[in-house]
Amino acid sequence: MKLTVKEVKELFKPKLLPIIWKDESNTLTILDQSLLPFQKVYVDLKDVENTALAIKNMQVRGAPAIGITAGYGMILALINNKNVKTLDDAIRELTRAKTILDSARPTAVNLVWATSRMLTLAKNTVESGNAKAVNELIELMKVEAKKIFDEEYDAEIQMGLYGLEKLNDGDTVLTQCNAGGLATGTGLGTALAPVKLAKALGMSVSVIAPETRPWLQGSRLTVYELMEEGIKVTLITDTAVGLVMYRDMVNNVMVGADRILRDGHVFNKIGTFKEAVIAHELGIPFYALAPTSSFDLKSNVNDIKIEERDPNEVRTIRGIPIAPEDVNVYNPVFDVTPPKYITGIITEKGIIYPPFHENIRKIVER
Amino acid sequence: MKLTVKEVKELFKPKLLPIIWKDESNTLTILDQSLLPFQKVYVDLKDVENTALAIKNMQVRGAPAIGITAGYGMILALINNKNVKTLDDAIRELTRAKTILDSARPTAVNLVWATSRMLTLAKNTVESGNAKAVNELIELMKVEAKKIFDEEYDAEIQMGLYGLEKLNDGDTVLTQCNAGGLATGTGLGTALAPVKLAKALGMSVSVIAPETRPWLQGSRLTVYELMEEGIKVTLITDTAVGLVMYRDMVNNVMVGADRILRDGHVFNKIGTFKEAVIAHELGIPFYALAPTSSFDLKSNVNDIKIEERDPNEVRTIRGIPIAPEDVNVYNPVFDVTPPKYITGIITEKGIIYPPFHENIRKIVER
Repeated sequence: MKLTVKEVKELFKPKLLPIIWKDESNTLTILDQSLLPFQKVYVDLKDVENTALAIKNMQVRGAPAIGITAGYGMILALINNKNVKTLDDAIRELTRAKTILDSARPTAVNLVWATSRMLTLAKNTVESGNAKAVNELIELMKVEAKKIFDEEYDAEIQMGLYGLEKLNDGDTVLTQCNAGGLATGTGLGTALAPVKLAKALGMSVSVIAPETRPWLQGSRLTVYELMEEGIKVTLITDTAVGLVMYRDMVNNVMVGADRILRDGHVFNKIGTFKEAVIAHELGIPFYALAPTSSFDLKSNVNDIKIEERDPNEVRTIRGIPIAPEDVNVYNPVFDVTPPKYITGIITEKGIIYPPFHENIRKIVER
Repeated sequence: MKLTVKEVKELFKPKLLPIIWKDESNTLTILDQSLLPFQKVYVDLKDVENTALAIKNMQVRGAPAIGITAGYGMILALINNKNVKTLDDAIRELTRAKTILDSARPTAVNLVWATSRMLTLAKNTVESGNAKAVNELIELMKVEAKKIFDEEYDAEIQMGLYGLEKLNDGDTVLTQCNAGGLATGTGLGTALAPVKLAKALGMSVSVIAPETRPWLQGSRLTVYELMEEGIKVTLITDTAVGLVMYRDMVNNVMVGADRILRDGHVFNKIGTFKEAVIAHELGIPFYALAPTSSFDLKSNVNDIKIEERDPNEVRTIRGIPIAPEDVNVYNPVFDVTPPKYITGIITEKGIIYPPFHENIRKIVER
């Protein structure tokens, strides 16, 4: 008796909302993630410039969260803007807004995707005469921005429901990084969706979160998010990932995925690969959770360049030096997990099992 | 044409000396490891109280280094001490010194072992009439303290020579924690001995050092030590351990060992197990390096309790909070690597290969 998305929405309300849009006042408010977990501060984003700055400064982070924020940010271009009197003014201002927002995080695919979607909607609306005045255009844009949010949230609920099939009462899930509601902007998340739905259904499920150096998304975000939701969570160093599996403290590994290839290679936050290999070796199920939009059916594993970031992220922590300042550093952002270590890939359209090179296409192109 | 220990001593001189005893002036000087890698400060230890404090405050750390320091610390009990006129005075002061030193790090086995050895030597010397005056006793104690150092250093050279057989020109070695000359007090080390001897022989060998959270011995000590010796080293986060092996950046894994059981289970710094599993999976040789004194031929794997330390070591880094202050933490010090993942155990008496339950006894009890 699988629940429907609607039933889940009645059962589960996120306690921690990273992005809040108020229709009555046309205001966009975000939880400042750069201050977490030390301060819980909500920031009103008054205009496009403010929104772009919040994205640039990582006050809002995570690909889907940035997309949702940028979608609403486009609407702000038309609110209380004296330069916008006609629909032509509106398209001009939206075009300007898109440029400003897109430049906030040049590599964020979801950002450009969301601003393009909003601008296209506006242009089509104006061209087709579906809006007679700016106010009408704004209302239609609100519907579209909410659609971006709802599509994301519904997909997460579906992933949560599929993941739930893999959890038993009393289970402990090992995760990695933050694939939670902070990263997606909905308050639910991808890899953390199953445990949140399990909690909502009255199951006793707990999480082990590795701190995830160098950015510490585990200790700063995942742990905070789960504590806010009242889910039992234990923080470990990345070095302890093996021991917790060896000591039978983990029933399931559930992680997010940034990019999944057609043969099942999973690119995700650095550290994912080691969890997969150890889980495989010890017979612990390992699941990657991601929407079908994360699949890249064209690239081969060797086509993907592993991005490297600033060595100072490793030489320091929160600005404090922890190594010789001139030490040579290798600081890759992602690693790649070959399909043989993956038990299943959980998407909003269902769970994909091996052989992945056959089954991924069947589900993703469904 | 394996080198002899004597030939190695002529070929290799450590550039970084953690413990310096001067016979002429009877002075004990240590490199303050608590300030590394930010400051290189040598501290003179004037008396027993000073020596105990340096051990307690982790200015000197690592089991063998603590043993060597405590051995020389016992001599300081008799230097410039107005209370010591007779040999009876000397034994009384040495007994008092042993109590003070032993209490500096209650769990340090090498500490008690070294002070006992020095006190026994003194008592035997006095009882057998081998020393007629305190000065003569001091000279014999200097010989014994140097023996403690030399035995350690010679064992490390032997381990280094056996490990060297596994290295080829151009190799990169992945290690873990600091199993170097800082930990052993000699400037050579266990797991780092082979690369140091390789360098001395003109080979081009480099090291990848994971930072080793929570204590960061990798970023603070291993990296510093190797840079001082002019050996190419790259610092990574603990999350990147899998990727560097996956990308063929590692030819060999060499780690230390705190305790090795008769069936080949290796207890070592948290994080070692994951390196062993991934190395095994990817066909990379994995060696544990430790003197035969680290073998525990009596215990079974489940007898060994894995020590847990203060949760604040994970919640903070160098005093800076990085997680919610009330988050639940699991902070184990060691992990255990089952024998199936270990290619060989390198001791001063030779390399032990599987089947370990047969071969360990043959070498250790030789």
